[in-house]
Amino acid sequence: MSKKQTENETTDRQTQVTSAARHPLLATLGDSRPLRDYSHEKLDEVAAEIRDVLCNLLATRTAHFASNLGVVELCLALHAEYDFPRDRLIWDTGHQIYPHKLITGRYHDFASIRTAGGLMGYPNPAESDYDLFMTGHAGSSVSTAVGLRSGDYVQNERDRKTVAVIGDGAFPSGIVFEALNNAGELGDDLTIVLNDNKMSICPRTGAMAKYLDRLRGNPFYTGLKSEVVRLLDHVPMFGDPAERLLAQMKEGVKAGLLGGMLFEELDIRYIGPIDGHDIQLLRKYLQLVRNMSGPVLLHVVTEKGHGYKPAAEDPVFFHTPPAFKDTDEGPVTLPSSGLPPYTNHARDAILRAMQNDHRVTVITAAMCQGNKLEPVREQVPDRFFDVGICESHAVAFAAGQAKTGLRPIVDIYSTFLQRSYDQVFQEVALQDLPVIFMMDRAGLTGPDGPTHHGVYDIGYMRLFPNMVLMAPGYAAELELMLQKALEIDHPSGIRYPKASAPQLDRIPDEIVIGKSEVLREGTDGTIVAYGAMLEHALAAADLLSGELSVRVINARFVKPIDEAMIADVVGGDGFVITLEEGTTVGGFGSAFLESAARQRLDTRGVRTLALPDQFVGHGDRSQLLDESQLSPRGIADVCREEAGISTSVST
Amino acid sequence: MSKKQTENETTDRQTQVTSAARHPLLATLGDSRPLRDYSHEKLDEVAAEIRDVLCNLLATRTAHFASNLGVVELCLALHAEYDFPRDRLIWDTGHQIYPHKLITGRYHDFASIRTAGGLMGYPNPAESDYDLFMTGHAGSSVSTAVGLRSGDYVQNERDRKTVAVIGDGAFPSGIVFEALNNAGELGDDLTIVLNDNKMSICPRTGAMAKYLDRLRGNPFYTGLKSEVVRLLDHVPMFGDPAERLLAQMKEGVKAGLLGGMLFEELDIRYIGPIDGHDIQLLRKYLQLVRNMSGPVLLHVVTEKGHGYKPAAEDPVFFHTPPAFKDTDEGPVTLPSSGLPPYTNHARDAILRAMQNDHRVTVITAAMCQGNKLEPVREQVPDRFFDVGICESHAVAFAAGQAKTGLRPIVDIYSTFLQRSYDQVFQEVALQDLPVIFMMDRAGLTGPDGPTHHGVYDIGYMRLFPNMVLMAPGYAAELELMLQKALEIDHPSGIRYPKASAPQLDRIPDEIVIGKSEVLREGTDGTIVAYGAMLEHALAAADLLSGELSVRVINARFVKPIDEAMIADVVGGDGFVITLEEGTTVGGFGSAFLESAARQRLDTRGVRTLALPDQFVGHGDRSQLLDESQLSPRGIADVCREEAGISTSVST
Repeated sequence: MSKKQTENETTDRQTQVTSAARHPLLATLGDSRPLRDYSHEKLDEVAAEIRDVLCNLLATRTAHFASNLGVVELCLALHAEYDFPRDRLIWDTGHQIYPHKLITGRYHDFASIRTAGGLMGYPNPAESDYDLFMTGHAGSSVSTAVGLRSGDYVQNERDRKTVAVIGDGAFPSGIVFEALNNAGELGDDLTIVLNDNKMSICPRTGAMAKYLDRLRGNPFYTGLKSEVVRLLDHVPMFGDPAERLLAQMKEGVKAGLLGGMLFEELDIRYIGPIDGHDIQLLRKYLQLVRNMSGPVLLHVVTEKGHGYKPAAEDPVFFHTPPAFKDTDEGPVTLPSSGLPPYTNHARDAILRAMQNDHRVTVITAAMCQGNKLEPVREQVPDRFFDVGICESHAVAFAAGQAKTGLRPIVDIYSTFLQRSYDQVFQEVALQDLPVIFMMDRAGLTGPDGPTHHGVYDIGYMRLFPNMVLMAPGYAAELELMLQKALEIDHPSGIRYPKASAPQLDRIPDEIVIGKSEVLREGTDGTIVAYGAMLEHALAAADLLSGELSVRVINARFVKPIDEAMIADVVGGDGFVITLEEGTTVGGFGSAFLESAARQRLDTRGVRTLALPDQFVGHGDRSQLLDESQLSPRGIADVCREEAGISTSVST
Repeated sequence: MSKKQTENETTDRQTQVTSAARHPLLATLGDSRPLRDYSHEKLDEVAAEIRDVLCNLLATRTAHFASNLGVVELCLALHAEYDFPRDRLIWDTGHQIYPHKLITGRYHDFASIRTAGGLMGYPNPAESDYDLFMTGHAGSSVSTAVGLRSGDYVQNERDRKTVAVIGDGAFPSGIVFEALNNAGELGDDLTIVLNDNKMSICPRTGAMAKYLDRLRGNPFYTGLKSEVVRLLDHVPMFGDPAERLLAQMKEGVKAGLLGGMLFEELDIRYIGPIDGHDIQLLRKYLQLVRNMSGPVLLHVVTEKGHGYKPAAEDPVFFHTPPAFKDTDEGPVTLPSSGLPPYTNHARDAILRAMQNDHRVTVITAAMCQGNKLEPVREQVPDRFFDVGICESHAVAFAAGQAKTGLRPIVDIYSTFLQRSYDQVFQEVALQDLPVIFMMDRAGLTGPDGPTHHGVYDIGYMRLFPNMVLMAPGYAAELELMLQKALEIDHPSGIRYPKASAPQLDRIPDEIVIGKSEVLREGTDGTIVAYGAMLEHALAAADLLSGELSVRVINARFVKPIDEAMIADVVGGDGFVITLEEGTTVGGFGSAFLESAARQRLDTRGVRTLALPDQFVGHGDRSQLLDESQLSPRGIADVCREEAGISTSVST
């Protein structure tokens, strides 16, 4: 197939994402209210249209795919049976929101999803009243749903229904258990739909997963319920010794047979499991649970990727597959560069460290795919631990391992490390244990948007004593930093973004704790870059060549920070710009200013360049960086400004 | 009883805390190894000695009391049956560590507990190899235990046993569920002792609590087990329709009868409940579970305050009762001041807000007593929510309530807010919901030490956009700040320490978002104090009067910070000192420097005075502050230094 041919096909598919001719029902739907009057057959037609949209979308860009295919019928049944948006619906984690968006007034804008200025790939209250919370981090939906119900109860609006839909992957998150514990006590009416597709992003792990598997085998699901009840009626009653015992026994039998005792024990009624692709059946059970009092868990079994065979067969790949047009590049590679992403270098460094040092383990919270750890899982399975979407446990677990003499690496997205902040404090920093945090996705993650951007870790990690925090500026540094982290007897963190790692034509200076590295000399001013922004600093210096002579320093460490370097650059001539892919509040720039203040340096020439103190939206990472003056061009402009040169020449 | 008489008695009791004559067994024990050869009767004698120590200790100071009385037998049985410290023991939350310390070589130092330089009131690896983790925050013990076992397995040390002891109050913490989910899957040998005393610090709440209550009623505990098994054998087996069904049924009966199905469903073996004050019985069951394979939960029922009748009858008061000598002052009041603590003002302000505004709710994570919310619970029960030790849920639950139009107040200790960091991010700040965080214990908490000091909140809360963050400097401000928080449509936080709130002889300026308040004029320099340190700043200025004329500014806000004030003081004459009860990293001082840098001000005259970047130990708050130059005397010295005056005059 020629390139031209592929391009034509892609364009065709793009126009088909929203095509009134292909999707007569969706195109005229407006909002989801009309669905309540649709027949099951007509809802099945809507389902088919939704799947067509999703498949055509995938031809145009990387997007969450398999999870959306899996909830089409569930989404339609919910909207057909509830009075949304007066009733309240929360989609946990939120990446399965596409069908919901397509039937709540956003069909015609749908082709813009995950692009700058377009629809967000997650629920977004700013887009629609049908979206309540911007979700993205897993597990909080049950808590917010309990809160919503509680709020309605306090205000005597008990007739408003609330539904939380949560996947089995998110379900073991600790906050879900906390919410069930509270829901069971409060007893407010509430429906929790457990969307069980037997998957996290990767195959799920944990005892809860096995439990759900057993529930699938129970007679309620396999259609033997009436048989069971008949049997129960035949269990003979004994006279003595204790009526209480017998009552308990019968309850035990019932619960054991009907399943869901784990939930029933927490005073959550359990119903299911039922087939999540049968709209008629779904509607029947939603009618039932909608009118039940107290909290109810409806266990719905779905197939991730349902309706598109390749996705159903390989839901891991099809979680966020690359667009058809760029399959070869792999899902993490930025389109702008053919170089491997930092994630690959991190994975390779981890694997080599594990091969060289038997103390090294790696722990992931269900991000085996995102962190590309599959080769580690295959080659060193006894030191690879996927604990599920349980970041708090992941960190405390690592602390336990470290205490026995191991050198655990917690491989985690920056934004998800927030979920174990207290364990970073108590179990790691306070005990001064040598746990290593590989903070992936540290920076703007692009199309996922604000729930996924990792822009706070510099600020929140450096608060704790004992921490050593660093960031590579180019590919070759990453492994050296991991080696250094393995040498020291303190907790440490290494941050890097979702981006290609530049391969500079140089041998890195030796990594010395708290020491920076000069990459380029210059006389008009200095850029001190922390982490991946080094590449942009060098590019900015290139852009300025002939105009300004800019020194570029690779900071390497935010904690301990290079005090001598700061004395040197702040005390020297020319402007000073600090540069980081993180919030302007409390980050590298602040650490720089703190050090300068300790040293009584005059910082009037210092400009801290970072992301603004506001939530950054979704879009292409380069474009988002550019909007915050963090592109090479933007940085060059700031240099000109600081040097007192008019920037009009560049615009 | 005369004052003199009371003092004599206190002195007597002090000498009795560790008295070889009163405690012949403890005084000669050395470590806990000899206990393995003790008879049950002799262990009971040790138990009596431990209780004598605890009661005498209480005559001298505030300490954790009821929880320690409750675990005496459990602690002795554990040490008698396991090979600690080679085997590993983790006490969750850690305030029940006293008996453990008394039998692991620390009896003779015990009178120093919770005093500066003395034993810590929590486990402390620096004190003894018998202490593995410095605990204090609830729930992480199961995770660290799973990590320890995993570490032993990786290193082929499978014969080392690991035991986690966790209270029923801590048990609903989400991380426990995450750990069980992982433990059930890994299947490594591990004993989890559930110390069920039917209490959190306050009476526990939640569905799990009710479940544990039901377990207590099960026949295993009530001695009917053999009867049950006999009955089971009489359940007749039917021929058809399905063998699987029948097998399931019998399992259902067994589990239902024997209890613990919630745990069994997660592949955790459940044993119990058993009487936690019967050493012989405890040893028998510990022998059993010690040799079982896979994870086991042993449910032990204890009585908080056991052996001291007043404590058993009022375990809430006797959780950390005031020392006998100062009962009248109440447990939170600092001995140095008769004024009510900030906590009381906060409680009163919350109660009034709830009475005046029906949208206001209050949410606590089991800290009803610590936050003195009992009157709120009694007077406005329908808007008071105790969710148990489930901080993550507490915050997401509040977000749900806020979404319905309520104005929830999360009343929480600064250090425990770390446990809901990701919910503060995603559910509150990102959604820009008007949840109010009342951050109590923000600062050095004194005798509890580093697990409880709340010194990071300024740094970690100000990272998030949309947040309004403030701190009162004196009593009258607190309620005004809460009123302001209720007026704005954004998330906000108010921080205050465990200390008496000064009552200044002034009417506070109106609270204007982002505006500071000048409390005292001066010409030689300025102290800008954030929060409770204002009192010390004023006292320092008093100390300096006649020597230096110091202006004192009450910063009030760290976000948004008062930029105009900063321009004024940094641009003016004299030194500038920023002052806060928080870490020197990323806190108010850093926010001040960030603003100054934005405004291109020369900060060479600015000194940021705060707690050092290291974990601060336990001791009297005033003394700890003094050690960091944050006492009035220390601040005055810093003023002299900054003004270029020799400080020798003051020392």
